[in-house]
Amino acid sequence: MTPSTVDQSAEKETARVEAFSDGVFSIAITLLILEIRVPRDLSAAGLGQALLHGWPSYISFLLSFAGVGIMWLNHHRLFTVIGRTNHTLLMLNGVLLLTVTVMPFPTSLIAAYLGTEGATMAVAVYVGWSVLIATVYHVLWHYAASPKRDPPLLHVSQDHPAVRAIFQQYRAGPLWYLGAFAASFWSTGLALGLCAAFAFYFALPPKPPRGERT
Amino acid sequence: MTPSTVDQSAEKETARVEAFSDGVFSIAITLLILEIRVPRDLSAAGLGQALLHGWPSYISFLLSFAGVGIMWLNHHRLFTVIGRTNHTLLMLNGVLLLTVTVMPFPTSLIAAYLGTEGATMAVAVYVGWSVLIATVYHVLWHYAASPKRDPPLLHVSQDHPAVRAIFQQYRAGPLWYLGAFAASFWSTGLALGLCAAFAFYFALPPKPPRGERT
Amino acid sequence: MTPSTVDQSAEKETARVEAFSDGVFSIAITLLILEIRVPRDLSAAGLGQALLHGWPSYISFLLSFAGVGIMWLNHHRLFTVIGRTNHTLLMLNGVLLLTVTVMPFPTSLIAAYLGTEGATMAVAVYVGWSVLIATVYHVLWHYAASPKRDPPLLHVSQDHPAVRAIFQQYRAGPLWYLGAFAASFWSTGLALGLCAAFAFYFALPPKPPRGERT
Amino acid sequence: MTPSTVDQSAEKETARVEAFSDGVFSIAITLLILEIRVPRDLSAAGLGQALLHGWPSYISFLLSFAGVGIMWLNHHRLFTVIGRTNHTLLMLNGVLLLTVTVMPFPTSLIAAYLGTEGATMAVAVYVGWSVLIATVYHVLWHYAASPKRDPPLLHVSQDHPAVRAIFQQYRAGPLWYLGAFAASFWSTGLALGLCAAFAFYFALPPKPPRGERT
Repeated sequence: MTPSTVDQSAEKETARVEAFSDGVFSIAITLLILEIRVPRDLSAAGLGQALLHGWPSYISFLLSFAGVGIMWLNHHRLFTVIGRTNHTLLMLNGVLLLTVTVMPFPTSLIAAYLGTEGATMAVAVYVGWSVLIATVYHVLWHYAASPKRDPPLLHVSQDHPAVRAIFQQYRAGPLWYLGAFAASFWSTGLALGLCAAFAFYFALPPKPPRGERT
Repeated sequence: MTPSTVDQSAEKETARVEAFSDGVFSIAITLLILEIRVPRDLSAAGLGQALLHGWPSYISFLLSFAGVGIMWLNHHRLFTVIGRTNHTLLMLNGVLLLTVTVMPFPTSLIAAYLGTEGATMAVAVYVGWSVLIATVYHVLWHYAASPKRDPPLLHVSQDHPAVRAIFQQYRAGPLWYLGAFAASFWSTGLALGLCAAFAFYFALPPKPPRGERT
Repeated sequence: MTPSTVDQSAEKETARVEAFSDGVFSIAITLLILEIRVPRDLSAAGLGQALLHGWPSYISFLLSFAGVGIMWLNHHRLFTVIGRTNHTLLMLNGVLLLTVTVMPFPTSLIAAYLGTEGATMAVAVYVGWSVLIATVYHVLWHYAASPKRDPPLLHVSQDHPAVRAIFQQYRAGPLWYLGAFAASFWSTGLALGLCAAFAFYFALPPKPPRGERT
Repeated sequence: MTPSTVDQSAEKETARVEAFSDGVFSIAITLLILEIRVPRDLSAAGLGQALLHGWPSYISFLLSFAGVGIMWLNHHRLFTVIGRTNHTLLMLNGVLLLTVTVMPFPTSLIAAYLGTEGATMAVAVYVGWSVLIATVYHVLWHYAASPKRDPPLLHVSQDHPAVRAIFQQYRAGPLWYLGAFAASFWSTGLALGLCAAFAFYFALPPKPPRGERT
């Protein structure tokens, strides 16, 4: 095979991994709504009350929708510079998808326990799972971008602004979520608020480290 | 990069946004059926009765199937002329997908309360959500088509018949749905009938404003 | 636009309709398993019994899996020769997808009522829905293949063997299912057996009418 | 048609089969999480207990996630060398997808019965289903790779290292799973442990038979 057909085949390979991952992301994000239960057999007044009391479901849905959406966005960004996969990357991507598909469970957990005695435990599980996800992203990216990979998995150089920007943005991810996890034992509202803020931050387009901006 | 590779990359970008959105639309539309519950443990006569009494489920399913289908169609139409995305458009598209994935909830709500005392509230929630969706479409389109975007997000000019036709068709969307929302407090049947009529209208291929037709 | 870019754009158009339809088919077929309930809280002997008594669920799952799979196959075959869509075809395709996404409901119905007094009604609903699906396929195909369409929606001529073969295979579809519907009031087993036989037949690659085979 | 357009059309054909299959795989793997039920209406202490007691759900989820993920990987590997489909291969692929979509059922079964009296039967059903899946893969591959197919379905020769490597890896698949099935009547833990080990093995990139490695 000539170099160009090799490149084409490597590109087709990552395209199929991306397509499968996109499928999983889009299903996981759409299944979240199934966790919001419709209150049944109520009078008009009772229904109004029940809809208002559903706020933990709405908050958990919004938070997880934003979370999974941002994960899709970041997955996509990584694969913009990843041009080749190998067995380890495939396995790491599988672990990442596992953590994503699990999301409806902790989401449903906080929907069921926010505002009750069990809220701290539910939020700790939710934010703890987010620590795990941030860590898997961190590991996957550092594996893919490592200069030790031969042939390299990135199709751009280590010095490419897009690569440096991702390194910069991902630097503190797992530590931040670890902070939110610790906060969950003190204030569940603060912990979830931090998760929302992090989602906002990771939605931003990554920028190269400060000294290098033009 | 040469202009042509830039264009190709921008096109690949919007193609992936479209593919992810299509995934979400197709899952949301297919999940709607899960809201229709099978009546269990009935005699033959009881089953017949129960199937007839399921009419609120059938109406809500048909209405929401048409609604989500039409949204897919319109999403597709917008992205026929949108050739480039930026961070804000991506976020607006995310909000749009959020409103779409929520649809099974209000659908299930009217299925559970049509024909009961809670019907007005259920229909008001349903039509109110449709107002929100129409507004998000309106905002997304006006953002994408605005002449202020630099580089422009459309790959055709502002004067292109397809662009003018979309502006024309979307002009009154949110206001119409707001009218149906108001109507829901007077007659739930009228409100849902209006929603069906609007779905029919937005399914039509958009036409350029009258004076400009040839 | 030159003719060739028109053709490319028409092809991209049908490609996106196919992709969306494929998404709906693949989700509808995968959701069928959710209708098989796991018997809970039983002893070892009770579990064995319960699994054996689950036969109506298994039969309905197999039948509907085959049914939706065959529908995908046939949808795919039609779009092998359809090279262009218009507004009516898009709407007909939407109605087709509606009938497909509904499938989990009648499937669940026969799973719940086979072997009980309500079996006849459940099977009549199931087979009656299949009559509707066969009719929609019939209408969609005759619309797409009609020589009255201008520009034609097929990208091959009316005399193409693939076109003639589809006409031949689809000729009696709705009538056959109507026969199975009638049979359901006499014997539910016969009616479902006929549905299985029809699925088998429509899975076969279509052949041109006898006199024209070489 | 010239040979090159025939090849392109055959390639497009297998691409669509792959895309549909990918859809089914990604939905089946994402639906697995729905089997993990959130314990409701508990105190803080009770919730902690309930989450710990959920271990059968977590094990069954992890095992089936790995299982379906590995199946996707292997499906993908086969279709890397399969360049053409025919009616029989399409039907075999349909049977394969059927076995995949069923997975949430045995998964839910072991989640409900691990640690109870019914565990042996639940695990036997689970592992028995895995025997079936391994057999279907075996049959599909031997059919596709058989030198009797004319035209051949592989787009590489029988002697291609990738082909020999798949033959080598698949040699004992069904027998291994049959061993785990037998083991399930003696120790459910051993049987599930073997399934995990097999998933690990089939995740490895296939290697050509020992004597032929360079």
